[in-house]
Amino acid sequence: MLTREVLQELIQVIGIENVLTEKEDLLTYAYDATAAMKHCMPEVVVTPLSTEHVAEIVKIAARHKVPIYPRGAGTNLSGGTIPIEGGIVLSMLNLNKILEVDQDNLTATVQPGVIIQALNDEVVKHGLLYPPDPGTITTATMGGSVSECSGGLRGLKYGVTKHYIMGLQIVLANGEVIRWGGKTVKNVTGYDLVALYTGAEGTLGIITEIIVKLIPAPEARKSIMAVFDDVDKAGNAIAAIIRNKIIPATLEIMDNVTIQTVENFVHAGLPMNAEAILLCEVDGYKEVVEREAVLVERVLKEEGAVEVKIAKNDQERDLLWLARRSALPALAQKRPTTVLEDATVPRSKIPDMLKAIRRIATKHNLQIATFGHAGDGNLHPTILTDVRDEEEMKRVHLAVEEIFETAIALGGTLSGEHGIGIAKMKFLDWEFGEAGVAALRSIKEALDPNYIMNPGKIVRRD
Amino acid sequence: MLTREVLQELIQVIGIENVLTEKEDLLTYAYDATAAMKHCMPEVVVTPLSTEHVAEIVKIAARHKVPIYPRGAGTNLSGGTIPIEGGIVLSMLNLNKILEVDQDNLTATVQPGVIIQALNDEVVKHGLLYPPDPGTITTATMGGSVSECSGGLRGLKYGVTKHYIMGLQIVLANGEVIRWGGKTVKNVTGYDLVALYTGAEGTLGIITEIIVKLIPAPEARKSIMAVFDDVDKAGNAIAAIIRNKIIPATLEIMDNVTIQTVENFVHAGLPMNAEAILLCEVDGYKEVVEREAVLVERVLKEEGAVEVKIAKNDQERDLLWLARRSALPALAQKRPTTVLEDATVPRSKIPDMLKAIRRIATKHNLQIATFGHAGDGNLHPTILTDVRDEEEMKRVHLAVEEIFETAIALGGTLSGEHGIGIAKMKFLDWEFGEAGVAALRSIKEALDPNYIMNPGKIVRRD
Repeated sequence: MLTREVLQELIQVIGIENVLTEKEDLLTYAYDATAAMKHCMPEVVVTPLSTEHVAEIVKIAARHKVPIYPRGAGTNLSGGTIPIEGGIVLSMLNLNKILEVDQDNLTATVQPGVIIQALNDEVVKHGLLYPPDPGTITTATMGGSVSECSGGLRGLKYGVTKHYIMGLQIVLANGEVIRWGGKTVKNVTGYDLVALYTGAEGTLGIITEIIVKLIPAPEARKSIMAVFDDVDKAGNAIAAIIRNKIIPATLEIMDNVTIQTVENFVHAGLPMNAEAILLCEVDGYKEVVEREAVLVERVLKEEGAVEVKIAKNDQERDLLWLARRSALPALAQKRPTTVLEDATVPRSKIPDMLKAIRRIATKHNLQIATFGHAGDGNLHPTILTDVRDEEEMKRVHLAVEEIFETAIALGGTLSGEHGIGIAKMKFLDWEFGEAGVAALRSIKEALDPNYIMNPGKIVRRD
Repeated sequence: MLTREVLQELIQVIGIENVLTEKEDLLTYAYDATAAMKHCMPEVVVTPLSTEHVAEIVKIAARHKVPIYPRGAGTNLSGGTIPIEGGIVLSMLNLNKILEVDQDNLTATVQPGVIIQALNDEVVKHGLLYPPDPGTITTATMGGSVSECSGGLRGLKYGVTKHYIMGLQIVLANGEVIRWGGKTVKNVTGYDLVALYTGAEGTLGIITEIIVKLIPAPEARKSIMAVFDDVDKAGNAIAAIIRNKIIPATLEIMDNVTIQTVENFVHAGLPMNAEAILLCEVDGYKEVVEREAVLVERVLKEEGAVEVKIAKNDQERDLLWLARRSALPALAQKRPTTVLEDATVPRSKIPDMLKAIRRIATKHNLQIATFGHAGDGNLHPTILTDVRDEEEMKRVHLAVEEIFETAIALGGTLSGEHGIGIAKMKFLDWEFGEAGVAALRSIKEALDPNYIMNPGKIVRRD
């Protein structure tokens, strides 16, 4: 229980107007976007306005050994922001300034509460791009995105969040404020703590400032849709494109269930009877885009696509991507609960993973729609279910476990982009063994010996 | 002192033929490529032939608390491989197999003793490239290169070693063998220990297998030399190229002292009277290369280059890069000792850093030649001196300190690509403060509580 004393100290630091304690206010901080996850009420929500506020609040939490959970927009998909042990939720939404766009060094400096899309809206004015592109780009914050190391649609060519984080200001678990990294392209000073904090899910400290790398925005892009009457052929076509030395910006797959659901939802002209479609976008200089589009079209036909359609104009292109981005909301309409999974394998194993997902769905008599970032091996098998149906949920959990087991057996990983959070903690030793989990735990304890930083995520006390 | 018992255990694990103890054998393991650094004799050198050997040897070291130092080709430039506390040097040179080139997943899997160039010679057969390109590419090993997070000439467009390391097999300080990461483009499972071990200089464990990312080799490239009668103009031209949304593969600078020395050494036709030259290479699809070369030429002229020369053929191009790669060996001929420094600032601060280096050279009456990876802000001021001249060496050390101070004051970092090792340990708190160094130390102690892994590098016991 949070004592009156702690509450008084918090109010003293940031003012009563930035402290929430009423039950109805706390309620929305009790969960995040993860399905079928228990809700946990925080004891207090505080909204700092500066790094100094964060440092002072962390010092209070450290002194009283009270858990503290940084929170952005709460869009994460592994329970990473749920205040599982009560305590203080630190809402970062008012630390929302873009502090600088530096065109000479191709960097931007932002506070953690900045929405990813807002950053892109700003840098596009200078002809620049911040490439990470998670599905939640219009709602998720930069702080959350760095903490979860968001992936998204552009991973294949451009990489993921960690490839764009150059510097971080961090409030450590003892309240000390440190800067790691900076604006230099090269930096080998000490251990790479910028990388360690990126994807640490707020369990090692709190991000209060972020320096990101920008790139010149590609001048042209072209989108291609390929229709397949056989999922395996679609799976094989993915590796074939890469073998032909084309690295598309985006290479996505949707299976038949997803196609039908999306088409009913957005009417984008998707082929309702296709077993699978691939959506591909190439970008860069316009000459390159022309060349690559032709080559991609040829490869897709060679690999057995029954139809290949190149978007003729912006409108056609935008409609294709609207369709892709509608996959999750459309599927979410079908049943009361949508369990969105994150099965990640080496690209060459996509056909095997697709087959395994179909087998698992049949075995457990579940409806699983699959879509995702096929080009980088990151699929989203999505189980359409109902959390109130206990018997079905048992089958869901078994299916999820089998999906992870299969991904790891195929040389993949437990999580490509959704994080470990609460949801996947218990499976960590499948990938790393006990000694590996112990190594992770030793890092947690080195930087947060009292487990006050977003406790109950990634690793627990032994 | 290493006991007879430890020696017997080592011989039992890997056979007497893989154990060196004679003074004349040990001598070459007492130093590395770092200038003006004390030599330290190891007590024994062992050459493992497998990961299992490494694990067994580490277990022996752990049991007896004997220091253990992994070593590749010993080309590093911050004293990182010097066995400063005696003990066991682990020569990784016989773990030198390229285990796989996976064209579908664009990865290669190698043992740590593979020479970087040998990997590239292999992958080029498949039209692929491993981009990291340190000056020591023909001699340095992959293990050393990952441990130091080598930079090199292609950092600007392609990034550095850490951007290409997808998976590592590590022998921890307790002898446990763990795999982190793998062949998936996306991976957010647990803390990013692949990144933590990349650049950890062997202080957290020993790398026994490496999965790297490959890219399709660019089909064309074009090299451009720009001659300046003013160093500042050359410095300004760098940021101007980037502002024009061109990211060259390579963008290097050489000052007048370097130019004259190199020209006398290789006769590449460099302009002996130029104050500075920029060497630039653009690469990619041939249409893009044409477009970018024209634009780079225009920008260089606008920025005041007195001559801009585009290499007409492979021979002219190779000669330019031979000249650039000869900078260090040529300078090394001029005086008995060459102190090669690593001053790294945000790209926009290159003109300021160049000015500061000239000021520091004058102040301490030293000959400093400067060349380096200007496009990514990483300069190599090179002090030509004589280690036997104690008075001059005092001035050298003062100048080096001022160079670091200036780099940090300009928003740069202590080391862009040479690492901390022994050489820069004492300056770490300039960049991170005491609390930051304490955080680094806590990570060291979490993963190597007895300081047996390459002790005396990056952080020492408090």
